[in-house]
Amino acid sequence: MSKRLVVIGGDAAGGSAASQAKKRRPDLDVVLFERGRATSYSACGIPYWIAGTVERETQLVARTPEQHRAAGLDVRMRTEVVGIDTDEGVVHWRDLETGTEGTEGYDDLVYATGSVPMRPPVEGIDAQGVYGVQVLDDGVALRAELDSGRVQRVVVVGGGYIGLEIAEACRIRGLEVTVVDLSATPVGTFDPDVGAIIAEAVRCEDIELVLSDGVAAIDVGPDGRARAVVTRSGRELPADLVVLGLGVRPNVRLAQEAGIPLGTSGGIAVDQRMRTQVPGVWAAGDCVESVHRLSKQRVVVALGTHANKQGRVAGINIGGGYATFPGVIGTAITKICATEAARTGLSEAEAEAAGYSFVTAAVDSTTKAGYFPGATPIRVKMIAERRSGRLLGAQVVGKEGAAKRVDALAIAIWNEMTVDEVLSLDLSYAPPFAPVWDPVLIAARKAFEAVEADTRS
Amino acid sequence: MSKRLVVIGGDAAGGSAASQAKKRRPDLDVVLFERGRATSYSACGIPYWIAGTVERETQLVARTPEQHRAAGLDVRMRTEVVGIDTDEGVVHWRDLETGTEGTEGYDDLVYATGSVPMRPPVEGIDAQGVYGVQVLDDGVALRAELDSGRVQRVVVVGGGYIGLEIAEACRIRGLEVTVVDLSATPVGTFDPDVGAIIAEAVRCEDIELVLSDGVAAIDVGPDGRARAVVTRSGRELPADLVVLGLGVRPNVRLAQEAGIPLGTSGGIAVDQRMRTQVPGVWAAGDCVESVHRLSKQRVVVALGTHANKQGRVAGINIGGGYATFPGVIGTAITKICATEAARTGLSEAEAEAAGYSFVTAAVDSTTKAGYFPGATPIRVKMIAERRSGRLLGAQVVGKEGAAKRVDALAIAIWNEMTVDEVLSLDLSYAPPFAPVWDPVLIAARKAFEAVEADTRS
Repeated sequence: MSKRLVVIGGDAAGGSAASQAKKRRPDLDVVLFERGRATSYSACGIPYWIAGTVERETQLVARTPEQHRAAGLDVRMRTEVVGIDTDEGVVHWRDLETGTEGTEGYDDLVYATGSVPMRPPVEGIDAQGVYGVQVLDDGVALRAELDSGRVQRVVVVGGGYIGLEIAEACRIRGLEVTVVDLSATPVGTFDPDVGAIIAEAVRCEDIELVLSDGVAAIDVGPDGRARAVVTRSGRELPADLVVLGLGVRPNVRLAQEAGIPLGTSGGIAVDQRMRTQVPGVWAAGDCVESVHRLSKQRVVVALGTHANKQGRVAGINIGGGYATFPGVIGTAITKICATEAARTGLSEAEAEAAGYSFVTAAVDSTTKAGYFPGATPIRVKMIAERRSGRLLGAQVVGKEGAAKRVDALAIAIWNEMTVDEVLSLDLSYAPPFAPVWDPVLIAARKAFEAVEADTRS
Repeated sequence: MSKRLVVIGGDAAGGSAASQAKKRRPDLDVVLFERGRATSYSACGIPYWIAGTVERETQLVARTPEQHRAAGLDVRMRTEVVGIDTDEGVVHWRDLETGTEGTEGYDDLVYATGSVPMRPPVEGIDAQGVYGVQVLDDGVALRAELDSGRVQRVVVVGGGYIGLEIAEACRIRGLEVTVVDLSATPVGTFDPDVGAIIAEAVRCEDIELVLSDGVAAIDVGPDGRARAVVTRSGRELPADLVVLGLGVRPNVRLAQEAGIPLGTSGGIAVDQRMRTQVPGVWAAGDCVESVHRLSKQRVVVALGTHANKQGRVAGINIGGGYATFPGVIGTAITKICATEAARTGLSEAEAEAAGYSFVTAAVDSTTKAGYFPGATPIRVKMIAERRSGRLLGAQVVGKEGAAKRVDALAIAIWNEMTVDEVLSLDLSYAPPFAPVWDPVLIAARKAFEAVEADTRS
C-alpha cells in the first residue's frame, strides 16, 4: 500500500513541500489541506493588488488548486485541520463550507500553517473595519472595503514593511493615510539613521507618520465600526478603516495542542532538514524558527522566500532525497514610494544584542557612474566587527536601482568575509551600471578605514 | 632629504597610486608623468560621450591635474617618459609640447602606462580615418571627425565590449554602422548561446553585423583616407571612418627596454602587493597581469576598476601600509542598446581550457515578480563543476535591471560556493525586486539538478 503525506497549509511552504515530495515519489499519496480559497499565492503581492499596481487577484496565484491537482495532489480547499494525533498518525479536519468533519491518516505530516497577524490587546480591536493583511482572503476583504467607496481615512497601526506597503497602496488610491508606530523611525529592523531616510520618503508621499506612539484603543461608533485610533499619547486619529501592520507571529496553536515542541523563539523547532522533534512530522514556512547565522540565535522570519525554500527542503527529504535549510541572515528589501531600502546581516541593535563590538561606516554614491544619465543616489552602510573587520551587517537605501545591491552584501556576509576582502572583490563595472568603485566597494573601503582607525586607537 | 616617488601614467592606476602614497606619507615627493592632456578620467565613458549620452568631456574626468596638484602632487602633463634606468633609479622624460628633455631620480617607481589598442597588421591600417579608442585624446579626435559632418558610414573592426559600445554610439548619432568580427557571435568572452542574444540586440538597433569574418585590408582613397574595409571573405564595406575595437594589449615597451620582467601573459609580472621583480619598481593597471582565481592562470584584464584597486594597493604599500590585490575572476558587464549582459568566472571555453569538467544550466525568469509592472526578462546561465557542483562561471543577459545581478554570482564564485549552497542563500525578496525565487536561485537550483543528474549517470 502506498504511503500518505498530509500537508497542513497550501501556501508557499506547504505547496512546495507537497509538490517536491510528489515529484520525487510519484507513488506517494499527497493530501493538501487549505482552509482558505487559494493555494500557493504571493502574500507579499497583496499590497500591490490593493493599490491596483497589480491588476488581478489571480495574478498573485503561482499555482491554483487545479494545477496542484493536475500534478497528482489531493487538494482539500476550505478545509481546516482542527487537530493532530501524532500517536495515531491522524489529522482531524473540518470542511468550512459544509461543516463536515473527518480524519485522515498520515505516514508523514508537514505542518505549514504560516503566521497570524499580531493584534494588540486593546479595546475595540475586534470591531468591524479593523483588518489584518495576512492571507489572500484578508486582502480580498480589505480591497472590497476600499472599493465600496465609503473609506476616505485610513489609519495603519505599525510602520514595518507591510504597514508601509499598505499605507502606500491606500495613498495611491487617493485616501488620507496615517501610520502609527511605537519606534522613533519606521521599519525598526533598519538602524535609526536609515529609518530617518525612509521616514522622509514616506512623508514626501503625504502619508502622515505618528512616531514614538502606539495604539491605546480603537474607538468604535454606534454602528459597531471602528471610527478612530486613540494613541497612547492621547491623540485621536479619525479612521474609516484601520489596518494592522504590527507584524506576525507563528501560527502554532495546533502544534502546541499536539505536543509538537516549539523553540525558544516561539516558532516550531526544526532541524536543518525541517524535521520537528516528533517522528514523521515536518514543518516549514512562517510557523518555524530558523538559525540566524550571525547571532546564532533561533529566530522566526516570516518571508515567502524562506517558506518556499523550507518547503522544498522538507519535500525533498520526504521524497527520499537529502536537502538542508542552512539558516538565515536577515536579508530584507522594500520599496517605499520612490525609495528603495534593504538590509542584511545584523543591524547595530542586533549586533549589540548578539555581543559583537563593531564600527560603522556609511557612504553616499550613485547607482551608475556619476556622469551617466539616470544615475540615482545610493547610501550604503556597513557594520564591521572591531579588529577582525568581519562584515556583520549592511543597509542600502536609495532610489531606482539601489537596493538590490544588498544581495552582494548578503553573500559576503554569508561567507564571513571581512570588509578588507570585500573591497577587493571583482564586481562588475561599466558606466551604465556603477561608478568605477561600486558603492559596495567604497563602503567596504570606508569601513576598513574605520576598523584600522579603531585598531590604532 | 625626502624620498621621491615617480609615477609613469596619470590615469586610473597611476593617479590612484600617487594619491594614496602621498596621503599616507605627506613628506613624499610625488612626480606624476602623463603624456596626454587629461588625468584620472573614465576611459570606459568615452563611448557615451561620443554618443552624446554624456554631455561634456570634462564629466569623464574624476580628478584634473589641478586637483592632483592641490593634493601635493607634482604633475607633468604632456610629458612622456622615454626611458627607465633601474640601476641608477632615474627616468628620462620628454616634454611633448616643447621638446625639452630631462631626467628625474626616484626611490620608488610606479609603472602605469596602460594599454595600447590592437592593430591588425593589414594594408591601410595606418591611413587617415582609422581610429583606436583607448585614451581620452583618441576619443576627442574621433568625436571631432563625427562632429565634422562628413562621416556617414562607420565600420567597427571587432565586436567586443568597446567595439559594440562605439557602434551604438555612432548609431545614436544617426550613422550607418557595420561591425566586423572574427567570431560567430559578438563579445567572444560570452558563450555563443548568450552571444546570440547579444547579436540579436545589436541587429535590432539596425547595426549590421558581419560575423565569422575578419579584416583583410583597409582600402585607402587617393586622398589618403580609409574608404572601405575589405574582409577576409572578400566583402567590401564602404566606410567614411574605421574604428578599431579589437581589444588592447599591455603597454610594456618601456618596461621591456628597462629589463622589468613580463609574465607569461605578456603583462608585467607583479606580486600581490603590485611589486615588479625589480626592487623599488611597482606596476599597476592595464599593463600588469593578474592571477585568475579559478583558472590559476596569469591573465591581463584591462578594466578601470582593477586599475583603480591595483593603483590603490601600490600606493598604500609605497606609503608604508600593507595591502594586496587578490586577483580577478573575469567579471564584466555591458549594455548594448536596450540589452544588458554580464559575465563572471569562467565561460565554457575558459573552463574547458582550464581543465574543468562541468555541466551547465540556464533559466529564463523576470527581474521582478512576474506579475509586477516593469518586470523584464532575464536569463541566468551557470557553469558548475561536475560532481562537486562548484560554481565556475555565470552569465546574465536581459533588459533593464538584469545584469547587475552578476555581482551576487561573482561573490559566490569568489568564495568557491557550490550551486547547492547558492540556492540556499538568503537573498532579498519583495515583488518590486524579484520573484519569490530570485533568478539567481532558480538558476542555481537548475544547475544543482544538472549536477545531480550527471552524478547519477
